[in-house]
Amino acid sequence: MSQFQFDLLQQDVTTEARLGRITCRRGQIDTPTFMPVGTLGTVKGMLPEALKEIGAQIILANTYHLFLRPGHELVRQMGGLHKFMNWDRPILTDSGGFQVFSLGDLCKIEEGGVSFQSHLDGSRHLLTPELSIEIQQALGSDIVMVFDECIPHPAEWKYVADSTARSARWAQRCRDVLPAGGETALFGIVQGGMERDLRRQSAEELQEIGFEGYALGGLSVGEEAVVMYEMMEYALPLLPQDQPRYVMGVGTPQNLIEGIARGCDMFDCVMPTRNARNGVLFSRFGKLSIKQARYHDDQQPIDPTCNCYVCQNYIRAYLRHLYRSNEILASVLNTHHNLYYYQQLMAGARRSIAENRFDQFRTDFYRDLDTQ
Amino acid sequence: MSQFQFDLLQQDVTTEARLGRITCRRGQIDTPTFMPVGTLGTVKGMLPEALKEIGAQIILANTYHLFLRPGHELVRQMGGLHKFMNWDRPILTDSGGFQVFSLGDLCKIEEGGVSFQSHLDGSRHLLTPELSIEIQQALGSDIVMVFDECIPHPAEWKYVADSTARSARWAQRCRDVLPAGGETALFGIVQGGMERDLRRQSAEELQEIGFEGYALGGLSVGEEAVVMYEMMEYALPLLPQDQPRYVMGVGTPQNLIEGIARGCDMFDCVMPTRNARNGVLFSRFGKLSIKQARYHDDQQPIDPTCNCYVCQNYIRAYLRHLYRSNEILASVLNTHHNLYYYQQLMAGARRSIAENRFDQFRTDFYRDLDTQ
Repeated sequence: MSQFQFDLLQQDVTTEARLGRITCRRGQIDTPTFMPVGTLGTVKGMLPEALKEIGAQIILANTYHLFLRPGHELVRQMGGLHKFMNWDRPILTDSGGFQVFSLGDLCKIEEGGVSFQSHLDGSRHLLTPELSIEIQQALGSDIVMVFDECIPHPAEWKYVADSTARSARWAQRCRDVLPAGGETALFGIVQGGMERDLRRQSAEELQEIGFEGYALGGLSVGEEAVVMYEMMEYALPLLPQDQPRYVMGVGTPQNLIEGIARGCDMFDCVMPTRNARNGVLFSRFGKLSIKQARYHDDQQPIDPTCNCYVCQNYIRAYLRHLYRSNEILASVLNTHHNLYYYQQLMAGARRSIAENRFDQFRTDFYRDLDTQ
Repeated sequence: MSQFQFDLLQQDVTTEARLGRITCRRGQIDTPTFMPVGTLGTVKGMLPEALKEIGAQIILANTYHLFLRPGHELVRQMGGLHKFMNWDRPILTDSGGFQVFSLGDLCKIEEGGVSFQSHLDGSRHLLTPELSIEIQQALGSDIVMVFDECIPHPAEWKYVADSTARSARWAQRCRDVLPAGGETALFGIVQGGMERDLRRQSAEELQEIGFEGYALGGLSVGEEAVVMYEMMEYALPLLPQDQPRYVMGVGTPQNLIEGIARGCDMFDCVMPTRNARNGVLFSRFGKLSIKQARYHDDQQPIDPTCNCYVCQNYIRAYLRHLYRSNEILASVLNTHHNLYYYQQLMAGARRSIAENRFDQFRTDFYRDLDTQ
């Protein structure tokens, strides 16, 4: 009996938005959910207590990075990633594929797997579906992703077809070494680029294998937002109603709202954390770049309507000063605020679905953005 | 009636160590005390709540740095440094002298003040005793330091004599613009380099002017520790028993213990914070450099006997990983631990003085250091 469960609690009436709950061994995750990215076993600038304070129920860790440093065997030896980084809630790990393929010429794809050179020291490695699962299990991941190729955009139909077929074979190999029913969930990843026929084929092949959840991969790779939305709209209904759906690497607040409206339950993106370190702050009234001179003597918080620790205690003039002075607290406070914003956006979406007013929530979201 | 008060609660029997309490408008400070350094309106890597959690009762801010960025007028306009940085406990500000004189050839001393070029943009400024006080008051400092010259070491007797005499005249000008009896305390700074006669003369001249507390400046400037200890031993008894005594810019844990034994009440130093960012961690068993390969798979906390948040939740192997990965959390966690260590050292010293066993406390301190 699997320890992983998804309950679909409510289906919105006017959109595809869904309210759900994932239950796994390390806790519950209310969906739609956003997963802060903790690449190297830390969400940059956030203490685990702060992540809990802002309501994060699950984080994402990167297999590729942890494989290279400090190494999955060390993490296993130290009792797993949760213990290592002092985070006792669920962790989803990506498969390493996305990062490996990002290396471009430094990687070579074969049926067996992908050989690549480390971006850190140039050392050579071979990442296979089996090794990816082994690494993710060594880390102690709660939700493991299949090893696949994230297809670049644009790409020729033939390339997309071959790659998607190979990813399906790799997905089977992942399932073979991580069968259903254990403590760890395994999610399949639908590929197929921007080709509907290949997306459908991929979705069908993955469901024949059978996974605890399904993701859309290969989106937010440079295509127009409208193309991404159309593909979500096409592909998400191809997936089981009673299992979680995850759109990988997405995205902006707008992307998240549109993803939810199309039936997506899970998101992850480096945007809130990376933007924070670059002084770009999210608010319901749009983004602001804290380094701008206009904030020199601005005594307002980032967002006067925000209830986060940062907005309750610090003014823009101080945050600008910290950013310009390259202070550690600039990253700490900016990250805290941005992740709080993302978590609140998800919480608001969940409440609105529960109350059958998601469509109004989406309207209000765009109205506020436009009042900046 | 001044809102600044010092109560000498206990005098150790076998050493000059003293237990005391400063009461000022923003709170109490138990002495001996260590003041974390918050150069630019933030103790690097520490949230104000974390500073309180480790027991910091007062922090130090740097006038020179805040004058240049973001500017004292902005801080005044924003309601003062306490509000700006979200710290409601006492702040001591230095006078800016130390940093200005550190600029070397970029500064020029005259009777009126010191002209210098900013290390940030090369802009020219004139810092006078009056301006230093104005800046410190604009910041909203609770304990203001007189503007003086921190004499380099070694220095000719004549240079030391001239500089010390000028610093005394500057001290009078500071007192003139910040009279006794108000909300803000003003501390005099004894100079005189390594010359006993000049130290005595400086101590006497300052007491003739009259301050709420007295500091020893110009120590920990490159002299041997034994020379510094001898000068503390000579100069501290020249100061009033019933007022706080502060040795500026000191120092190592050993320096603090020896300063306390000689009758010093207040210390500040960048060592715990700067070392933390360089991966050098303090413990009762000595320092450790967390980047070393020996900590690769070390499952111990920094100090198994330490009760700080970091030692309760993180192992050396993780801290090493964070440091090597240049993660923000490396600085955050290392700083937290080091400042906790310093605060605990002071708390231990205070308890031991209260219980008339400071000498034993000092013996135990050195015994533990040697067991590494």
